Amino acid sequence: MTSAEQIKLFLDASSMTAVGVSRRTGPGAYNLLDHLLGYGYTGRVYPVNPNAEEILGIKTYPNVDAVPEVSDVALISLPRLSVLQAMKDCVRKGIKAIIIISQGFADADDAEGPRMQEEIVALAKSTGTRILGPNTFGVANASTRFCTAYLPIPMDVDGVGTISQTGATFVGLNDIKLVGKAIDVGDMCDVDIVDCLEYFEQDNETKVIALHIEGMPNANRFLHTVGRVALKKPVVALKTGRSGRSAQAVQSHTGALAGRDELWDVALREAGVLRVDDIEDLSDALRAFLTLSAPRGNRVGVMTPTGGFGIIAADGCERHGMELVEFTGHTMEALRKLAPEWLGVGNPVDYFPGVSIMGHRRDEIELAAMRLIMQDQNVDAALGVMGAFGPELGDDLARLASEMARDFPEKPLVYWLYGPFYEEARTKLEGVGTTLAFPSADRAARALMHLRWRADYLMRRNQR
Amino acid sequence: MTSAEQIKLFLDASSMTAVGVSRRTGPGAYNLLDHLLGYGYTGRVYPVNPNAEEILGIKTYPNVDAVPEVSDVALISLPRLSVLQAMKDCVRKGIKAIIIISQGFADADDAEGPRMQEEIVALAKSTGTRILGPNTFGVANASTRFCTAYLPIPMDVDGVGTISQTGATFVGLNDIKLVGKAIDVGDMCDVDIVDCLEYFEQDNETKVIALHIEGMPNANRFLHTVGRVALKKPVVALKTGRSGRSAQAVQSHTGALAGRDELWDVALREAGVLRVDDIEDLSDALRAFLTLSAPRGNRVGVMTPTGGFGIIAADGCERHGMELVEFTGHTMEALRKLAPEWLGVGNPVDYFPGVSIMGHRRDEIELAAMRLIMQDQNVDAALGVMGAFGPELGDDLARLASEMARDFPEKPLVYWLYGPFYEEARTKLEGVGTTLAFPSADRAARALMHLRWRADYLMRRNQR
Repeated sequence: MTSAEQIKLFLDASSMTAVGVSRRTGPGAYNLLDHLLGYGYTGRVYPVNPNAEEILGIKTYPNVDAVPEVSDVALISLPRLSVLQAMKDCVRKGIKAIIIISQGFADADDAEGPRMQEEIVALAKSTGTRILGPNTFGVANASTRFCTAYLPIPMDVDGVGTISQTGATFVGLNDIKLVGKAIDVGDMCDVDIVDCLEYFEQDNETKVIALHIEGMPNANRFLHTVGRVALKKPVVALKTGRSGRSAQAVQSHTGALAGRDELWDVALREAGVLRVDDIEDLSDALRAFLTLSAPRGNRVGVMTPTGGFGIIAADGCERHGMELVEFTGHTMEALRKLAPEWLGVGNPVDYFPGVSIMGHRRDEIELAAMRLIMQDQNVDAALGVMGAFGPELGDDLARLASEMARDFPEKPLVYWLYGPFYEEARTKLEGVGTTLAFPSADRAARALMHLRWRADYLMRRNQR
Repeated sequence: MTSAEQIKLFLDASSMTAVGVSRRTGPGAYNLLDHLLGYGYTGRVYPVNPNAEEILGIKTYPNVDAVPEVSDVALISLPRLSVLQAMKDCVRKGIKAIIIISQGFADADDAEGPRMQEEIVALAKSTGTRILGPNTFGVANASTRFCTAYLPIPMDVDGVGTISQTGATFVGLNDIKLVGKAIDVGDMCDVDIVDCLEYFEQDNETKVIALHIEGMPNANRFLHTVGRVALKKPVVALKTGRSGRSAQAVQSHTGALAGRDELWDVALREAGVLRVDDIEDLSDALRAFLTLSAPRGNRVGVMTPTGGFGIIAADGCERHGMELVEFTGHTMEALRKLAPEWLGVGNPVDYFPGVSIMGHRRDEIELAAMRLIMQDQNVDAALGVMGAFGPELGDDLARLASEMARDFPEKPLVYWLYGPFYEEARTKLEGVGTTLAFPSADRAARALMHLRWRADYLMRRNQR
């Protein structure tokens, strides 16, 4: 079996033996069965607990040997001193993929933890068993509704494949669900980020790969693999532990070496991996790669209902290296017809005097002005600024976005939305599936810049 | 009358003559009466329109002269060629404060606009009339439920006083309402940012001042005033038009000179004004000043349920100059008792093994750990990281925040919240009134840094 096939065994498990499932259930019990049963997972689950006949209505087994089949995956959540014996039971049973949830191995501050981890690794190597963890949430797969985390995970088949050194990323982003498919590699005693990259490289359901990296024992092997994968699918990395202090915290979290941060900057960039700075940027970048086409260049046209916010949008674009382009004479001429004659027109396009002074319908002039921007040959991408003042705005924006996607599929369109109907308008607009809305011009422009960066990288690579 | 008293006339108007109110009402009509009547404004409103007997049930007058009193404020929203005559009518009536909504004066791209503006200004100067605008939303005052904007403005008595060169800021922030009290100075033909600063300086309801600046004809006078005001109340400025391109857009928006951006950076900093980069940062900074006490230093204690997010929080803190402090020996000893013996303890405090391995109640250990952090003499501020996985979390957080505010009122507490119950938890937590939640550690740390910056500034000023 290749690494990819072995990782697939974890994610697509059709059966799981769960050693150490507690009889305690409900809020505060952190019992994975509480959640797994609710997801709609259709595989077979075999809890192992010598003190229970059944847990949440599922027949429970006194030991691994008593389980009536060799399950695809075993999960061990026991105190650390009991883990090795449980692992031996699983190996003897013939189970080839084991998730160790338990903490207190390489991440421990004593001698015992690392020593026990060595024993686990030795057993795995000598028997061809793959270990995910220790100190992990395990895996989650929205397609099969399978998730081994002891917290409720909102899953959604969204094309994101996540590889993380913390399970917190399974739920830590507020604007996007990272599950998709997700693997928490934990302390990486065996299955590592590279194995997972090879899996997501070949997984057709995965369109974009999210990496959370704290440290890496073999950075060269990683960079070689991720460089290959990044040519096929966008890879976005949140490499944490930038500072001396936080590098120290990495050490105590997973036992991995954090390394010099500036080297990571360069190495990731050269491998074609987009490095992001924080969790919101990660979320925005993933949404951009999933939703928007890459602009052919960095030339942006901005449309705004207010001069003041047009300037803020221009600031945001230029901060992220996107250029407010000069429109062609043809576009300028057409824009002049939409505006009072005394209004200077240009980029940003302030269309609102056409409404308030000339009496055009707002939705119609928005559509006309955006069409002029999009069809301008100097424009690679458009940023719309829009106040959401009524419930009808979402529908107007959705109609506009649909038309633009149909007529200018190669030009991405993003919005800075504000106002009391923000959420409603955003939901409708993004429902079209080709456009994103952000609560600031800065984030909208940054998303465009991320797309442009990858497109540039691929172009330069192809020219070599 | 001082400037402040004149500005008060606009904001606290007990009566308004509105010249040029349209008979068209409802969605798409941009009729201020549609909104004003809904706010609950109890002053008297006199629409002037020769073609109507009444609009929305309000008696309408054929001309300004026919209005039965000299109102505090007049509002003019007519095509630009009719504005001067309307202004003459108002001046003859004896009205001392006039808001010119109309566009097409100094902001116009022709010779006629600036020329008409000169006439307006000359008339104002010669008669002691104050003009707000042209090209403005006018004013809004949540306390009196008065707002002259032709769009619906969500107002809330929140302590924010906003001075803006665009009305869009009245509604452009999604995490805070800027109205409060707000003044859109528009093209600043007469009433300018300095006049408004003097008003907010003495207004007891205003706790924090938000500035949106595109450009300034007399920067020295502004810096002198704002430097004085910033010693009394926090002043946060979004100075836009950073780039060459956007400075050009400023020119065409309001006719003001944008100036060299780096000079603004230095000048605002030396005047004690916090400059922010974008609309989200503005919102976060205002919320911080309204809600949190300023930390005495930059030393932060972090509490997290996951090592991985603790590291991200540490990255965020250090990016913004907040230091992850070493706890005292006393704190370290107490933390060790909350954790499994093999767990290395320190800052960030990863408390979750105390729950998952030692069986403590989550809410109890959170409270105990946060108390240890807060009472540590090395700690100036705390950042809590928290996954919102259930509806009970908001209540737990609110209880914790209340206790911390009671026992450590001088130490600000901020949260990075994530997870499916984010909004619910945030609402409850912030309901306490002393704590803020953010969707990333980066923004939480930035808010602390803003508070620290101002406290430092005031300390240095006092040492002179």
